[in-house]
Amino acid sequence: MAGSYNVLVGQSGGPTAAINSSLAGVYSTARSMGAGVLGMRYGIEGLFDNKLFDLGKALGSDLDIQMLRQTPSSYLGSCRYKLPLPEEDEEPYVRLFDLFERNHVGAVLYIGGNDSMDTISKLSAYGAREGSGIRFVGVPKTIDNDLEGTDHTPGYGSAAKFIATSVAEIGRDSSVYDLRNVTFVEIMGRNTGWLAGSSVLASQEFAVCPDLILLPESPVTEDALVERIAGLLEQMKSVVVAVSEGARRPDGTLMAEPPTSAIKLDAFGHEAALSGASRYLASVTSDRLGVKTRAVEFSTLQRCANHLASATDLDEAYALGGLAVRAASEGKTGVIPAVRRISDVPYLTEFTTVEIASVANRERKVPLDWIREDGMGVTDDFVRYARPLVQGEVTPLYVGGLPHHIQMLTWGR
Amino acid sequence: MAGSYNVLVGQSGGPTAAINSSLAGVYSTARSMGAGVLGMRYGIEGLFDNKLFDLGKALGSDLDIQMLRQTPSSYLGSCRYKLPLPEEDEEPYVRLFDLFERNHVGAVLYIGGNDSMDTISKLSAYGAREGSGIRFVGVPKTIDNDLEGTDHTPGYGSAAKFIATSVAEIGRDSSVYDLRNVTFVEIMGRNTGWLAGSSVLASQEFAVCPDLILLPESPVTEDALVERIAGLLEQMKSVVVAVSEGARRPDGTLMAEPPTSAIKLDAFGHEAALSGASRYLASVTSDRLGVKTRAVEFSTLQRCANHLASATDLDEAYALGGLAVRAASEGKTGVIPAVRRISDVPYLTEFTTVEIASVANRERKVPLDWIREDGMGVTDDFVRYARPLVQGEVTPLYVGGLPHHIQMLTWGR
Repeated sequence: MAGSYNVLVGQSGGPTAAINSSLAGVYSTARSMGAGVLGMRYGIEGLFDNKLFDLGKALGSDLDIQMLRQTPSSYLGSCRYKLPLPEEDEEPYVRLFDLFERNHVGAVLYIGGNDSMDTISKLSAYGAREGSGIRFVGVPKTIDNDLEGTDHTPGYGSAAKFIATSVAEIGRDSSVYDLRNVTFVEIMGRNTGWLAGSSVLASQEFAVCPDLILLPESPVTEDALVERIAGLLEQMKSVVVAVSEGARRPDGTLMAEPPTSAIKLDAFGHEAALSGASRYLASVTSDRLGVKTRAVEFSTLQRCANHLASATDLDEAYALGGLAVRAASEGKTGVIPAVRRISDVPYLTEFTTVEIASVANRERKVPLDWIREDGMGVTDDFVRYARPLVQGEVTPLYVGGLPHHIQMLTWGR
Repeated sequence: MAGSYNVLVGQSGGPTAAINSSLAGVYSTARSMGAGVLGMRYGIEGLFDNKLFDLGKALGSDLDIQMLRQTPSSYLGSCRYKLPLPEEDEEPYVRLFDLFERNHVGAVLYIGGNDSMDTISKLSAYGAREGSGIRFVGVPKTIDNDLEGTDHTPGYGSAAKFIATSVAEIGRDSSVYDLRNVTFVEIMGRNTGWLAGSSVLASQEFAVCPDLILLPESPVTEDALVERIAGLLEQMKSVVVAVSEGARRPDGTLMAEPPTSAIKLDAFGHEAALSGASRYLASVTSDRLGVKTRAVEFSTLQRCANHLASATDLDEAYALGGLAVRAASEGKTGVIPAVRRISDVPYLTEFTTVEIASVANRERKVPLDWIREDGMGVTDDFVRYARPLVQGEVTPLYVGGLPHHIQMLTWGR
């Protein structure tokens, strides 16, 4: 990958607070190696419209790069495009590899989650088959933390820090009136409870908060839940329940209204965006226990709250972006850089690379022995795992009293 | 108010990020003057159950007081109790003044908003009529910023800082896909648009965000709103609308589903808690323009996000708490300390006291000439007013990667 070659980098899937830090790591490392850096606008999908951008023109100074690290969301734009198999439709591959050649692309880096790894896996396999010298490397990213092959994924730690901080604040807020009440806080996670589980970090030594956590991995009946809440309300007046948007009943249906609604699938065959678990459970609990209930949804706040990012998360995101460039420069393809944990206390890790084919289209769930026996919480093992990932703070660049961001490439038309 | 007298302090109405800073100001100032400090648990309502607490027993160290300042929500607990007029029912007054005497109370301080000022106004008038020597002083607090007699109220600046920061983050998040979309962000404010208006601070020089702001003071028709959004979508792909929960149509109905629902009133005769403006407008806009829409509600996050508090706000809250103690010690009663602005740039203020009777049960609205001509935004006058109030940051006391809080008096049963 000599200087006359370009690194092409894209962002894919849902935005996070750390995905731009990975982009900064890719950019800085590639530039330090003398390569040019082209950005895909709107991911692979944008490439079909030739939406390439010379990142060197936008990121001129160290301040720009620092602002990029501290700006949430996907600076380059994103997509949720699924490549067909080349056996079924080779045309997209022909167009993409032609574009790569015309733009002197030596390496394609794609920052994303499970679905994005599917894209890079297919491109890498196709390139190998066609004898292409282009390297394809993924950079892990997802707040869901459901990627196999890595201890955790960039984006998760910052989302967890926001979730736990906000649950602690809501717990204090919900306790002020002298009346029994239950607050349901709805947290992202369609099929895995990594995010909902992270709310456990909100507890301080004297104060358990949240009282219950519902994870997709651990189905519970509404009867069991309401009975448990009733029991808690005999000991305390204010109960906080963290609910994964994908919380389920034992029959597999979502704990959301309407319970019998048809399941909608997105392009990747996943169930379409869910919502409503907190409102549904607030209504059920109010009806059955006659107490005041409240539903709070973190919605997109939890993935874009860069102002409360974990320094550990942003640093690892940056490092993994840089390591992806390095892996490509060493001739690796079809891999992603990953984190391997050496110890929880002190928090020690090493970086490695794993074959992307072993990662793509799989989904890592919370281990069942990290879920409390009653199925409505997580164990100390989960805390030991998650605690290091929220450590350290990033001071926003405050201008006019507010965190300042870099101008998004995606703004305007 | 000699050392043998106690200051009795309570918190009332909705929690904020700054109300405990006011309590810290009351406590520290009273102690420095040699007075004891008793706290009302659950406000005036708790007093009827003798829920008094010696604050000296809970706040033993400077670290405790600092943690109190940086803990959101109402440390003492709160209530929404409305005192009857003494002509209608004197019994509550007799009971309260008896309790005051028995506990050697020389001054009663009540930290709250409009409704709490009604309470302190009535107690003060009753005390004067009965020849009591007890002083009654209010301490202004409300994120709604709708109190007369003061330039602004503690709690507002921190809520505004959270709102504007989050709107900026959501604006970036909403722009990442290459498709037309509209995000409605629902912000508190039943009758006034101070909070919704504060989202204007999210704009940076290159980036207007939010694009539109709907305030209760400026009714608009759904037709006009949808037409305006359609126009914006011809110039940009992603539109962000900040919506006050009390946004209205010209006929006075709330811009929320169902538009014809009966209005529920709370104990103070206010319309009961609203919600749904963002979801309603997301649905209407999606139906009429065929674009992707999203609804985000900040709900209680906006009033309890102490981790993003404005240092200006917490400092002023602390000062006003202390000044209330000072006013009482100077023999004043039936007053509140207030802020008078001298200039916007540089931000200069002085503190004063105002008669509580001129403040209670009134509601200060956003001046109509601070609202944009199209009725869907605020002017630079609003920005000049609000910008100083979000200035300065408070570093949370991070423990285990999360902001640490003082143990709430309200936790447990």
